[in-house]
Amino acid sequence: MIKLLNVCLSPALIPLYNIEDYIVVVIDIFRATSSITYGIGNGAEAIIPVAEIQECSAYREKGKEYLLAAERNGEVVSGFDFGNSPFSYTKEKVFGKTVVLTTTNGTNALHLSRKAKKVVIGSFLNITSLCSWLKKQPDSILLVCAGWKNNFNLEDTLYAGAVIEQIKSRDYVLDDPAIAANDLYQIGKQDIVDYLKKTSHSERLKKLGIEKDIEFCLQIDLTTAIPILDGEKLVKLV
Amino acid sequence: MIKLLNVCLSPALIPLYNIEDYIVVVIDIFRATSSITYGIGNGAEAIIPVAEIQECSAYREKGKEYLLAAERNGEVVSGFDFGNSPFSYTKEKVFGKTVVLTTTNGTNALHLSRKAKKVVIGSFLNITSLCSWLKKQPDSILLVCAGWKNNFNLEDTLYAGAVIEQIKSRDYVLDDPAIAANDLYQIGKQDIVDYLKKTSHSERLKKLGIEKDIEFCLQIDLTTAIPILDGEKLVKLV
Repeated sequence: MIKLLNVCLSPALIPLYNIEDYIVVVIDIFRATSSITYGIGNGAEAIIPVAEIQECSAYREKGKEYLLAAERNGEVVSGFDFGNSPFSYTKEKVFGKTVVLTTTNGTNALHLSRKAKKVVIGSFLNITSLCSWLKKQPDSILLVCAGWKNNFNLEDTLYAGAVIEQIKSRDYVLDDPAIAANDLYQIGKQDIVDYLKKTSHSERLKKLGIEKDIEFCLQIDLTTAIPILDGEKLVKLV
Repeated sequence: MIKLLNVCLSPALIPLYNIEDYIVVVIDIFRATSSITYGIGNGAEAIIPVAEIQECSAYREKGKEYLLAAERNGEVVSGFDFGNSPFSYTKEKVFGKTVVLTTTNGTNALHLSRKAKKVVIGSFLNITSLCSWLKKQPDSILLVCAGWKNNFNLEDTLYAGAVIEQIKSRDYVLDDPAIAANDLYQIGKQDIVDYLKKTSHSERLKKLGIEKDIEFCLQIDLTTAIPILDGEKLVKLV
């Protein structure tokens, strides 16, 4: 059976898709979905994505097993344990804990995708494991780029192209955004770190002094963990 | 002074831009903006883009100098003189006439761009003339891809990349969509006709039996005419 392999280039375009027909991969490379993958890989019990900073604060009363993470415009929101730097999601910090997380782009994309057949988290840190799993699924696949403030960004699209590179076959029909993402990957794949230096977001993160985060997020196959949405929580797919 | 050179990949993303700050180039390669360029180049007095088929019909009573053109889903709407095939915009047909036009994607993109500093029409048919003019403008430039049903398409994005190739310089700062469009153009430029064969829209138009239209729309510099929005009408920039 022919399946669709589509790319949604921005959360603003999600309404154009019949989201219920797809397995959705949410992509926010710098840095939400990289950190989520790393955290789940390091034994976090769950990560709860919430849209608003207040929802995140509300967990403060519920006990010490909750770590509160809030990021806006690339920075940790004042008063919170941490934001979405992957270095906050080490084993020492998250093992056995539940992280409640709100970010500028990633959690919104997750929220808008929740009616999909399944929602999983993509990053370079788990790409091969994710692609092996995707190839076994009987359903169409929609790669949702979180982008930057509802617009297209290069890093998420390039990653979508990298996933397509691994899974494309006669079983799938690609749409135009998927063809474009895969072509951009052909240009960027020789040196992804270098290619992404020209992005606007890379400039933005450099100003925030978090180039180390960028390098970290571009590592391949650091873990085999695939975070999957289960109700309101992201947990490890087993 | 530094100017922005940005690409809006779909009409659905236009609200993300401060449209009043830009000169907008509207792009709907297959086929609205190619036909508009050809028609204005062939001496049409004006082309009036309207959003709805009824608005188009309303001109029927106004006299024989109005030609009514309506396209939906790639086909001429029944009861209309023609749709948006460039072969309907020859000198014999349009010289001295005003065409009232409604299309699936292009007229909507025009409508959403009307608050820009200036709105001009881009196509391969006038690319060099357009780019020479753009380079002389003191303002930031937004290339608006009409896309397909509010989503990204390859042909409009590739064209945006071709424009960027001609005008990019130290005077301009590119955003991520502009970088991506220009990179896609690097992949497609060797053989644009062949590259675009893999697009979904090309498949769609082939089914409609209008491959000749596609070839026509990919011709370079058939005219120097630049259509510009003047009130509600597109006229020749002088």
